[in-house]
Amino acid sequence: MTLLQASCDDIRGASIEATSAAEQRQQQLTKPAGSLGALESLGSRLAGSQGTCPPRVPARPAIAVFAGDHGVHAQGVTPWPQEVTRQMVANIATGGAVICVLGRQLGAEVLVVDVGVAGPVDVAGADGRFLDRNVGRGTADLAIGAALSREQAVAALEVGIAVAHDLVDQGADLLVTGEMGIANTTPAAALVAAFTGSDPARVTGRGTGVDDALFARKVEVVRRAVERTGSITEPVAVLAEVGGLEHAALAGFLLGGAQRRVPVIIDGVIAASAALVAAALSPAAVDHWVAGHLSAEPGARVALDHLGLEPLLDLGMRLGEGSGAALAVPLVQSAARILNEVATFDSAGVTGKQPPA
Amino acid sequence: MTLLQASCDDIRGASIEATSAAEQRQQQLTKPAGSLGALESLGSRLAGSQGTCPPRVPARPAIAVFAGDHGVHAQGVTPWPQEVTRQMVANIATGGAVICVLGRQLGAEVLVVDVGVAGPVDVAGADGRFLDRNVGRGTADLAIGAALSREQAVAALEVGIAVAHDLVDQGADLLVTGEMGIANTTPAAALVAAFTGSDPARVTGRGTGVDDALFARKVEVVRRAVERTGSITEPVAVLAEVGGLEHAALAGFLLGGAQRRVPVIIDGVIAASAALVAAALSPAAVDHWVAGHLSAEPGARVALDHLGLEPLLDLGMRLGEGSGAALAVPLVQSAARILNEVATFDSAGVTGKQPPA
Repeated sequence: MTLLQASCDDIRGASIEATSAAEQRQQQLTKPAGSLGALESLGSRLAGSQGTCPPRVPARPAIAVFAGDHGVHAQGVTPWPQEVTRQMVANIATGGAVICVLGRQLGAEVLVVDVGVAGPVDVAGADGRFLDRNVGRGTADLAIGAALSREQAVAALEVGIAVAHDLVDQGADLLVTGEMGIANTTPAAALVAAFTGSDPARVTGRGTGVDDALFARKVEVVRRAVERTGSITEPVAVLAEVGGLEHAALAGFLLGGAQRRVPVIIDGVIAASAALVAAALSPAAVDHWVAGHLSAEPGARVALDHLGLEPLLDLGMRLGEGSGAALAVPLVQSAARILNEVATFDSAGVTGKQPPA
Repeated sequence: MTLLQASCDDIRGASIEATSAAEQRQQQLTKPAGSLGALESLGSRLAGSQGTCPPRVPARPAIAVFAGDHGVHAQGVTPWPQEVTRQMVANIATGGAVICVLGRQLGAEVLVVDVGVAGPVDVAGADGRFLDRNVGRGTADLAIGAALSREQAVAALEVGIAVAHDLVDQGADLLVTGEMGIANTTPAAALVAAFTGSDPARVTGRGTGVDDALFARKVEVVRRAVERTGSITEPVAVLAEVGGLEHAALAGFLLGGAQRRVPVIIDGVIAASAALVAAALSPAAVDHWVAGHLSAEPGARVALDHLGLEPLLDLGMRLGEGSGAALAVPLVQSAARILNEVATFDSAGVTGKQPPA
């Protein structure tokens, strides 16, 4: 059996018992019931994912940034040169990118994984924060035909699963999805359109710095690619047709975390599009995911709605790298801490709300 | 000269130069310009408040929870007994409340200040985390007449200023507003209505657990109280007529932080209503404040809009205690860190966005 099949077969959903215990515990803590809003449901979600109440407080978050290039870059869907992917991979590996700053703040490892970068990456001085798991030197142009072979898609999925397993084996108790890949909002939009049945114009965004002419071209590219997936229903086949190698690896990473019952925080539209692939492969995996933020990319909201996930943050961000998910880590930790540490009405001797006279 | 007058006279707005330097620096960092959304404007705001770019990263946040009781409790505006105020003050002083859990997570001091609690507080085991600065054993009933004398209002304002000064003198570089007071959303709604000219029905909320009948009564109480302020324009006089002692202390705390150029995070509707008082006393002080979250109480949005502040978080929370502001602390730290630590395009050798062909 392949790693992908074994991982999917092994995934179980939330513990109903732990979720329910957390919901009951929220009523006993010294605060009006429901007054912590989304933080209360987040706490229950963590309990359900870990299968224990109160949930353990995540103390060792780990961020994996999967990097890849895209043949569709040739269609002029972005004003950024393709070489920026490998330049930014080097910047991440040597600690200069936004995600590195956030990782240091959190005390979190930031691991950058080359799963599909087009050219060689200069990672002198990376100190083991770089992993070469290159499956292909970028994808084929999805405007013309399938972006990936089925073998490449499965290989990249399995890179993501293995990275999640390795991080958990090394002690990580909260996983954060990150990515880097110039032009990767185009395959993300195509995945969102294909998996949700949405109009490409609704889910295609302006990426980082796209003008009107580029935007129209990008929507057309997405529309044609998605049309080819019309009769395809098998998730890996859809992924291979219109996806990217980092999208595939992220889908695997989301599955690997779910398999180990370690919560995974979804970042922006790239991770959310990958989550659609992963959820199609294993619907129960969704119980282990948390939506970190609402990307400014329109496809993100459509994807999260489809998954039934409500984002924690909405700061108008569209950077990627895992930045929005990393910012949500302290909220996840707070939600778990509250269930562990807040006094109950009984223990603190606090009088409850009185019934109406 | 009084401490209040001296503090107001001493407050200066943001440094235009540091704000502009931060905005320019955001363009040079290795990320698409604007891709960090609200985090970028937050970074510039911190630079402007501190008067230096890049801004210092806040390393010692301090949370002050001002507690008070309210004569309007007699009108039946809340299902919670008044004794819960002092029970919760004791719970906060001994580390059992939500704000204590968040304070521990942040490594932040949590200081609870009795500025107007109705009865004696049992703070055995509080270990110096409790401060007795009681100005009055609760307010008078604002449904009938002025809640405070002018002397009480000024005294409570000055308690807040002094607490801010003391915390900053002890090393705090980021201040967090907290409060506890059963029935204190009623004076908050009255302050918001009075300072923004909004209809009381629009800014009055359901507090924590108010049904339809209670809600109608609460709106009527607020409406009658605000009508009495019709011809009053002087901020302290409005505060005395319809406010509360913790609202007054919070207004002072916001002024004291601004005076020392230390950013202050506004929590929910109580702190936002206090910020309206403080901004009326010193409009320049607003530059030093950050809106931590959007409370589920309707008056919060009205108050923040009036102040021109956009909240960082929107989690449907309505607990108070400073909980929403505390959750925003890591975001404030991230915004400052990014301006300090992210590599520039030049330093990292990353190619910029290309002009359209």
